[in-house]
Amino acid sequence: MDLELLSVGTELLLGEIVDTNAAYLAEKLSELGINVYHKTTVGDNAERLAAALRVILGRADVVLATGGLGPTEDDITAAVVARVMGVDLVEDEVSAERIRSFARQRGLTVLGSLLKQARVPRGAIVVPNPVGTAPGFIHVNDGKTAIALPGVPAEMKAMAEQTVLPYLAGRAQAAGGAVIVSRILRLAGIGESQAEAEISDLIRGSNPTVAPYAKTFEVHLRIGARAPDREAAQAMIAPLEAEIRRRLGQHVYGVDGETLEAAIGGMLRKRGKTLALAESCTGGLIGHRITNVPGSSDYLLASLVTYSNQAKVNLLGVPAETIAQHGAVSEETARAMAEGVRVTCGADVGVSVTGIAGPTGATPEKPVGLTYIAVANQTGTVIEEHRLRGDRLMVKERAAQTALYLLYRRLREAQS
Amino acid sequence: MDLELLSVGTELLLGEIVDTNAAYLAEKLSELGINVYHKTTVGDNAERLAAALRVILGRADVVLATGGLGPTEDDITAAVVARVMGVDLVEDEVSAERIRSFARQRGLTVLGSLLKQARVPRGAIVVPNPVGTAPGFIHVNDGKTAIALPGVPAEMKAMAEQTVLPYLAGRAQAAGGAVIVSRILRLAGIGESQAEAEISDLIRGSNPTVAPYAKTFEVHLRIGARAPDREAAQAMIAPLEAEIRRRLGQHVYGVDGETLEAAIGGMLRKRGKTLALAESCTGGLIGHRITNVPGSSDYLLASLVTYSNQAKVNLLGVPAETIAQHGAVSEETARAMAEGVRVTCGADVGVSVTGIAGPTGATPEKPVGLTYIAVANQTGTVIEEHRLRGDRLMVKERAAQTALYLLYRRLREAQS
Repeated sequence: MDLELLSVGTELLLGEIVDTNAAYLAEKLSELGINVYHKTTVGDNAERLAAALRVILGRADVVLATGGLGPTEDDITAAVVARVMGVDLVEDEVSAERIRSFARQRGLTVLGSLLKQARVPRGAIVVPNPVGTAPGFIHVNDGKTAIALPGVPAEMKAMAEQTVLPYLAGRAQAAGGAVIVSRILRLAGIGESQAEAEISDLIRGSNPTVAPYAKTFEVHLRIGARAPDREAAQAMIAPLEAEIRRRLGQHVYGVDGETLEAAIGGMLRKRGKTLALAESCTGGLIGHRITNVPGSSDYLLASLVTYSNQAKVNLLGVPAETIAQHGAVSEETARAMAEGVRVTCGADVGVSVTGIAGPTGATPEKPVGLTYIAVANQTGTVIEEHRLRGDRLMVKERAAQTALYLLYRRLREAQS
Repeated sequence: MDLELLSVGTELLLGEIVDTNAAYLAEKLSELGINVYHKTTVGDNAERLAAALRVILGRADVVLATGGLGPTEDDITAAVVARVMGVDLVEDEVSAERIRSFARQRGLTVLGSLLKQARVPRGAIVVPNPVGTAPGFIHVNDGKTAIALPGVPAEMKAMAEQTVLPYLAGRAQAAGGAVIVSRILRLAGIGESQAEAEISDLIRGSNPTVAPYAKTFEVHLRIGARAPDREAAQAMIAPLEAEIRRRLGQHVYGVDGETLEAAIGGMLRKRGKTLALAESCTGGLIGHRITNVPGSSDYLLASLVTYSNQAKVNLLGVPAETIAQHGAVSEETARAMAEGVRVTCGADVGVSVTGIAGPTGATPEKPVGLTYIAVANQTGTVIEEHRLRGDRLMVKERAAQTALYLLYRRLREAQS
């Protein structure tokens, strides 16, 4: 089954928003083993939309369109699909009642423009919208299928997951298609080229496949397998994963959606340990990441962003002489910060970061990007020096990632 | 002049990366007054790429392609463009020498695959790549123009800004085209629908135009004008901006790229005041945003992320009875945190946030999203209660934005 994606919206052609819907759908479709060879974007223009639909349905079995299902005059997708498919629009009773009830709850008058959203091409399967008011639809005619979903990402995702992807999975299965299962191994502390070099012989295969993706100081290795069913695909992935872990296991901190901060949280929780952070150049980013994990209040006591020297002295107990002698960005200050925050907060583990994010603050001896990271626990303190590249935000992000990775390794060592 | 965007890369059709290049180029082209009616994505497949190029050049004057200029076998854009344009590929001497020198510096053998990047369609204008090794090109043939740039965003942007956009601006000008100038007014503390209602009569115009865009608890109003030259366009924008400011001026904190944290930093710096933050549910995000502004160490002393109750008591001096009696998420605790961090850090202004980010931690009286924000300065303390919607990250982002906006208003009041 060949499917094409069609994004509808003038705002996409003006660059006002980035089309994340298409990337999301493309990924999900590839997991179902559905081929997507083209992706098209057109504005809110009936003639160009109709022409695009005709071109796409001439090439592919299915068009999956997003956008243009809202209440305004610009929202023309349902009408144009109906015209191209040679049917008229009819009101879907369930959707219309949902819109009326939505309006009543908010004390709104039910305008025709709102109700317009309930109109779908005659004969279509209605795709319920659990999040908003505009339903989507699946319309099959003469061997060709047009699917339309709203452009609002939260609505599109909910409707795709609930209705459209299961529908397409069923069709792909019925057509004897294969499923594609993928598993992502998440690595820290290694660059893309180094990771690739270690497993280059494994990357050559066409099924299963291994593909590396570079992230901020991380590499994700995606193992994909195409097979008649999920179990068979997983059986192809398992030995490849084992071989990658044999070579690069020390860098693998998680799989699929697991973040480094979630892996850290899992280890702290399991061992009943508490954490305190002393941030400087990262400005709070490490605390933000740690607290993105639900339940992090179980182990994070505090993160002290001591931006001024005075705050380092007063709040963390860094000796003023240490800063005067070695500077705020130094191994000695990083050590005193990590040990200080551990004591101040009564935490089991203390982490500190001090560096020069730039563009100002550098000296000939201490360039932009120079960063010291320390992790203190009951067995002692480990300190690393890094020279991080990039602009201010990039240095902050790399410093946060580097600190979390050092913390991760220290926790893992303590565990083993 | 009609132009179409063509993104080349199988990774885009698999959803492995989001196509930010197309959004970037679309925005820049719209500022030049160049019409973009279609955007197409194809994989690294010569037949489909050639077919897409023919379709696009049948509709438009110019195709601007990104991706597929690298050293691997998958990189076929130059060869396919040459075939469609009916010319052969020739090596560009300057690019070839650049690649050889790049390889020498790194001690690499100059492989044929690297040098392949220097091959461009015969007769093309070469677009130098100041960041990487693959040049781009502009090829004009029979009234149709094909432009190709690499897919790596940093390379694409540098080459677009340096060569391709000036080239297209020149052509648009020569063709008697207009320039489009835009100015963005950034508003906080108001929703999109409310802002739209206040200026709905101004939104109707077609030139100049006013368009609202919703951001996280912000609204950006983009005023655009199309005119023969920049000065004429700016003269059309000025009265419209004045009228919007007359109606909504209290919400306008900045223009164009100025962030709320930069506006806050500007006011603190101007008045020589210092700032200290006491964060709880935001976990460090407010400190991260404040310190994204270069030079923020001039006014930010510290941000104390006091996640545990003990940290609130020990580090900020919040009375234990206050937490016991009213809870950590309460008006009273927010007040004590803001006033406490101001005193602890010796800052002129103290800001605090305490709330329930979820998904756990809620009670019947205190639902997820309940957030208290306080700003303390020498004239007293102002506290706000908010009920923020969304998942954990959304509540954190909205709480940070709401706190920064309250801080902004307090600084502005003190200024006037």
